[in-house]
Amino acid sequence: MAGNPVAERDAMARARELAHRGPRGVNPQVGAVILSPDGRVLGEGWHRGAGTPHAEVDALSRLRPEEARGATAIVTLEPCNHTGRTGPCAEALLEAGVARVVYACDDPGDASSGGAARLQAAGVAVARLDEAEGEAVIADWLFVQRTGRPRVTVKWAQSLDGRAAAADGSSQWITGPQARAHVHRERSAHDAIAVGTGTVLADDPKLTARIDGDADAPQPMPVVFGTRAIPVDAAVRRHPRGHRTAGHDLERELFGLAADGVQSLYVEGGPTLASAFLAAGLADRLTIYLAPTLLGGPRTVLDDIGVRTIDEQRRLTVTRLEQLGPDLLVEATTEEVH
Amino acid sequence: MAGNPVAERDAMARARELAHRGPRGVNPQVGAVILSPDGRVLGEGWHRGAGTPHAEVDALSRLRPEEARGATAIVTLEPCNHTGRTGPCAEALLEAGVARVVYACDDPGDASSGGAARLQAAGVAVARLDEAEGEAVIADWLFVQRTGRPRVTVKWAQSLDGRAAAADGSSQWITGPQARAHVHRERSAHDAIAVGTGTVLADDPKLTARIDGDADAPQPMPVVFGTRAIPVDAAVRRHPRGHRTAGHDLERELFGLAADGVQSLYVEGGPTLASAFLAAGLADRLTIYLAPTLLGGPRTVLDDIGVRTIDEQRRLTVTRLEQLGPDLLVEATTEEVH
Ligand SMILES: NC(=O)c1ccc[n+]([C@@H]2O[C@H](COP(=O)([O-])OP(=O)(O)OC[C@H]3O[C@@H](n4cnc5c(N)ncnc54)[C@H](OP(=O)(O)O)[C@@H]3O)[C@@H](O)[C@H]2O)c1
Ligand SMILES: NC(=O)c1ccc[n+]([C@@H]2O[C@H](COP(=O)([O-])OP(=O)(O)OC[C@H]3O[C@@H](n4cnc5c(N)ncnc54)[C@H](OP(=O)(O)O)[C@@H]3O)[C@@H](O)[C@H]2O)c1
Repeated sequence: MAGNPVAERDAMARARELAHRGPRGVNPQVGAVILSPDGRVLGEGWHRGAGTPHAEVDALSRLRPEEARGATAIVTLEPCNHTGRTGPCAEALLEAGVARVVYACDDPGDASSGGAARLQAAGVAVARLDEAEGEAVIADWLFVQRTGRPRVTVKWAQSLDGRAAAADGSSQWITGPQARAHVHRERSAHDAIAVGTGTVLADDPKLTARIDGDADAPQPMPVVFGTRAIPVDAAVRRHPRGHRTAGHDLERELFGLAADGVQSLYVEGGPTLASAFLAAGLADRLTIYLAPTLLGGPRTVLDDIGVRTIDEQRRLTVTRLEQLGPDLLVEATTEEVH
Repeated sequence: MAGNPVAERDAMARARELAHRGPRGVNPQVGAVILSPDGRVLGEGWHRGAGTPHAEVDALSRLRPEEARGATAIVTLEPCNHTGRTGPCAEALLEAGVARVVYACDDPGDASSGGAARLQAAGVAVARLDEAEGEAVIADWLFVQRTGRPRVTVKWAQSLDGRAAAADGSSQWITGPQARAHVHRERSAHDAIAVGTGTVLADDPKLTARIDGDADAPQPMPVVFGTRAIPVDAAVRRHPRGHRTAGHDLERELFGLAADGVQSLYVEGGPTLASAFLAAGLADRLTIYLAPTLLGGPRTVLDDIGVRTIDEQRRLTVTRLEQLGPDLLVEATTEEVH
């Protein structure tokens, strides 16, 4: 069965919007739209998280009996082929009598993939559309599927010469208000935020995302790495999302966070924790705020990251350079582009 | 007497070109053009360095007797009013019968200034033109007149996190070929180049300016700061301009360099010498080459620069940001703009 290209493209864009309504967590965000054979929208759906119906089943559930017969299902992710807490979506689509399925990205799961093949074998027309846009919706989730851990951004602010603070530890106002506002937006864009006990004890940070004019900005869950106790009156104990503690085995802690639905982690320091993530090869993306100032002295923004000789240097790929007031933001990945 | 604006402006531009033919040294570079009352060029001249005729006298010397009577002299610097190794230029212009004098920048010297007033008192018409352009020609010389020392650029190359080398000291190829080519052009643009004995002993640098396609590029004079002996086979001993040694009292050494005609000094390191210049407040301009790499470890690009607490940080004014291949050049001055 041939599709209706214009209606299907519009429906896929709508399905991506619907996907974003679902929560970030262990499961991917997925959206679905059911179109009649002449291209009218019959129903919409999205996935509301583990244990709830998948997007296409949610959309089908909004239709009258038999209304889906001969219809086209537009889904941002390949319909699954396995029976988890919900039945396989491929079966649900077949039972409803859907004649055509258009999806964006392949299901990367070993157990869940094969839905497209199952549908095709049963005589359903299957097509793909907007693969890249569909993958962008669930980029972090796909990263977790590939690696078993959240995507990690390591952030720090430094003087041009790589210091986090003056010799006596004072560091207020190295960067300006634009850079600090940017940090709050970044916090809000991550599922969790990490600091070491050193930072909690030295700075007592709130670890909330405070964005002017957006009181409802999503808040990252704070994770404090380290064995020292968090003081009873620490600000992080009053965080709206509670807080979580973690030990020194970073990889293991990251696996645990992913298992609990954390797809992205924002590591805000200090120098010891940032260096540990870099030394372990667990920093995927870096955001470095460079202030136009020199400090010299002992308070380097990184300590040992395991580079003994120049051949072991950690080359970065700069993905973005931006002036933020007087400061410069360097965004980079640790993967070299060749 | 009124001038001929178009001819005078052209002549001033030409005078600036002529100025550049003279050497940089203790005296300023000055150019002069003599115009007939109807705006024809009668003669050109420039100053060839201490002990030789000043530019306007050089230009007058090319004219036939009486040819300058009623003429206009265009000079990039106010004609001097004192008798040094050569007589005062104001007198020479009066004697030649020049009717009008146009100059660009004021003579800042206590002993030499006042030439314009002397000429005016004697009935010569005096005007100023292109002051900023004229000052640009001798910016470094004017800096020396104001401060008694050369203008100092401190240069270094670093990883993003402020390291000059890996833990074992290896540092080859942190920055790419574009950045290294830029450094050679900078070397050539300075009168002298400074390193500490630490760099000579560790790297044995040639300290020459090597510019592709320009075998005749001006070479800076090397100055080695420190008390340790320079090895007999050190490359700097074969430098085309010879070399000079200097001690730890940086200000005193700078005064000595200025007295010997060094108007600009390019400090290429290493970390100890760069930090000493910064700590002493003797770095006017910084050129920092940032390579997109991380090193961590002990080899910081600066050590102590005298900043104990954050209020003492050395705020910079970034005057230029440029991508050089994979690297970033940050040019800055140590004066804050308010
Ligand atoms: N410039 C910036 O962007 C920035 C950002 C944040 C903080 N800071 C500054 O950094 C300073 C604190 O520095 P810091 O280095 O002590 O703070 P930190 O990195 O926040 O905390 C260090 C602690 O992290 C724990 N940790 C957890 N996993 C680790 C592992 N795998 N390896 C090593 N340590 C691990 C250890 O805690 P236990 O000893 O408890 O086990 C360690 O002592 C403060 O002055 C703060 O202002 C600067
Ligand atoms: N990344 C870069 O851009 C860059 C550039 C150049 C060099 N380097 C690296 O830097 C390393 C050498 O480091 P370094 O710090 O030993 O070299 P350095 O700064 O070239 O030399 C240090 C020496 O300078 C002398 N000095 C003169 N005046 C001084 C003063 N006022 N205060 C202190 N010292 C003064 C002292 O010599 P005496 O002890 O003899 O009196 C001191 O030991 C090498 O590995 C080199 O590769 C890096």
